Amino acid sequence: MTGPCTNFHEAFMRRALELARLGWGATHPNPMVGALIVEDGEIVAEGFHAKAGEPHAEIMAMRALGRKPDTDATLYVTLEPCCTHGRTPPCTEAIIASGIKQVVVGATDPNPQHASRGFEVLRAAGVEVEAGVLAEECSDLNLIFNHWIVEKRPLVAAKIATTIDGRIACRTGESKWITGELARADVMRWRRLFPAIAVGAGTVASDDPQLTARLPEGDWCPLRFVFDAALSTATLNPLPRLFTDSNRGRTVIVTSDRQHSVVVRRLVQLGVRVWQLPAADGVIEMGAFTERCAHEGITGVLVEGGSRLLSGLLKNRALNYLLTYRAPRLFADAESIPVATGLRVEIPTVGLQLAEVHHAVFGDDQLMRGRVVYPEKLEFDSPTEDGHDHHHCGCDHD
Amino acid sequence: MTGPCTNFHEAFMRRALELARLGWGATHPNPMVGALIVEDGEIVAEGFHAKAGEPHAEIMAMRALGRKPDTDATLYVTLEPCCTHGRTPPCTEAIIASGIKQVVVGATDPNPQHASRGFEVLRAAGVEVEAGVLAEECSDLNLIFNHWIVEKRPLVAAKIATTIDGRIACRTGESKWITGELARADVMRWRRLFPAIAVGAGTVASDDPQLTARLPEGDWCPLRFVFDAALSTATLNPLPRLFTDSNRGRTVIVTSDRQHSVVVRRLVQLGVRVWQLPAADGVIEMGAFTERCAHEGITGVLVEGGSRLLSGLLKNRALNYLLTYRAPRLFADAESIPVATGLRVEIPTVGLQLAEVHHAVFGDDQLMRGRVVYPEKLEFDSPTEDGHDHHHCGCDHD
Repeated sequence: MTGPCTNFHEAFMRRALELARLGWGATHPNPMVGALIVEDGEIVAEGFHAKAGEPHAEIMAMRALGRKPDTDATLYVTLEPCCTHGRTPPCTEAIIASGIKQVVVGATDPNPQHASRGFEVLRAAGVEVEAGVLAEECSDLNLIFNHWIVEKRPLVAAKIATTIDGRIACRTGESKWITGELARADVMRWRRLFPAIAVGAGTVASDDPQLTARLPEGDWCPLRFVFDAALSTATLNPLPRLFTDSNRGRTVIVTSDRQHSVVVRRLVQLGVRVWQLPAADGVIEMGAFTERCAHEGITGVLVEGGSRLLSGLLKNRALNYLLTYRAPRLFADAESIPVATGLRVEIPTVGLQLAEVHHAVFGDDQLMRGRVVYPEKLEFDSPTEDGHDHHHCGCDHD
Repeated sequence: MTGPCTNFHEAFMRRALELARLGWGATHPNPMVGALIVEDGEIVAEGFHAKAGEPHAEIMAMRALGRKPDTDATLYVTLEPCCTHGRTPPCTEAIIASGIKQVVVGATDPNPQHASRGFEVLRAAGVEVEAGVLAEECSDLNLIFNHWIVEKRPLVAAKIATTIDGRIACRTGESKWITGELARADVMRWRRLFPAIAVGAGTVASDDPQLTARLPEGDWCPLRFVFDAALSTATLNPLPRLFTDSNRGRTVIVTSDRQHSVVVRRLVQLGVRVWQLPAADGVIEMGAFTERCAHEGITGVLVEGGSRLLSGLLKNRALNYLLTYRAPRLFADAESIPVATGLRVEIPTVGLQLAEVHHAVFGDDQLMRGRVVYPEKLEFDSPTEDGHDHHHCGCDHD
């Protein structure tokens, strides 16, 4: 597709994307979707999906129009209209009923069982469909949903902030701050997107983080997971803010199912939730964790460190997505904290890779993010050789 | 500056920048400069500085015009016109003589002794001068010249290619390839820019690199420095390509002044040049090296690894500039090769930093580059604690 017509489509789709983003973090387990209606080259109505259970974006746009669309009206929507009955009736029916004859779509439904069926239904009813306008961008917007709907498991993502030499903290464990203000503000946006954030016990002990998203439009507290097989955080004095602040009802300690019920009960009395899951060698089984998340409808978890938690996730192929900020700093210190360790890589091309890579710049810092692709076979470093199994936190928290 | 007039100026200055870049790598020790003349909103003549000793860009543009400029003519030039007699007469004189009454300039002369004097001379003669249009970009183009003219020493830059976790090679030393084709093609552009490239003896032994710039417009061989205090590369069998290829006259072995004259003579007989310089603990004194470069008019050196050479440069505050590519790969292997080691950093903000940071994207890879800023005090790791003083090369070469 080239030429002025495409640019027209892209300009309207860009606006639909802006609308979709108004639902940022609020639509789980549904995707963010934006829609608008164009008549005679002008936008006459806009809509977006605000919350699961509420009307879809297409319906919102048609309601905003408040009348029958013109015969030349075109509906732009960032995601393929649904054609099945969910909590709401299928949008394809509503579109057909409205009399709209042109539909321009961004991303195709990521669910292989539904993909392109919405298009077929529309076309069968005589609606002209142009798909794939800004498809990549429209799809990227719903990276959590796209994973969830296919895998029926949460997208496990990690955020790291490194120096040029890939260190997430100094030898002291100190990591405030590697990246600049603009990059840290972007992290807050991601915290708002993910329904849950996770940290390790070491991070809680060293940083006593809040793990809230401080945003210009107000504060937001995601579900806050603390991975702590040994329940070491329960004996910290003073108790971590995650267990005592006004959002403590949104803190979940993920611990071993062998933990003593007395300590667990004490935490529950604080108002904190406790998930007791199978653990091996002091490490929670990620399969059990993601299964529990799925059961509770938690579609995505953003892991914010440290090095140990991340290394464990990588070893177990449990990390699905990585957001990695790089600041123009260099430690050149062999004892500073690495991103992760525990693997053994002998050829550059057989290491872990990111796919569907996106780049962004925040002040002097860079963000690179993408889906984690594992090699067919992971080789492990022998633990005794690993000189870097530090207990430092190694992550930017507050 | 805002409004349509500025955009006008910027559009013409962008073209002048394009012209300047036609002298990429060919103008040393002079800067790259582009110039053009606009009459009635149209470009009527263009010029650029092609080579030291040849006319400056402004003169080339005036020559290309081949007649007296109109009374409304404006000269755009990426760098402040010179007002002193060098190998060529001052451009300010030629501009005044031409009758041009408007001059728009990008960067100010980086030489503090001359900065803004060109503007003063022009203004005193009734020429209207607008300075600072795309100043940052115009100045960045001459990062080598800007350093050289102030410091009277070459700009010592290093290029590295890392994973997300800041590794420049696997535990095996293998580094082919961390970055993708587009990033590697960009490295060729930088090789073409710098009059000289430098590597350590380890890199020569493991990679047997050519260190030429393979570019679409043809191959180019910079001066090729091999840092080899012990002359270990002289005994390699077969001899490295740097000593035997048709460009061997452009290879310079930088070694200790205590090296035995027999080995040195053998190398000289091969057609290779040898610089014997003071060394301490097997490390060439960088002060002596840059002094010799200055003496020979070498304005910039691009160091391409490995980890040891880079660590040495950082310890000695001898690295002025860093170009660092990052690929969407992750080794998570504690034994993989770090960028550099040997320092001791306890707070993130007291590590090394880059200033005047520039970002670029090449396919899935990112480039971050900038001037190296050292903290007031460098602390060193004790050598025995450093588990990473590998002898692997750890750099991308060919």
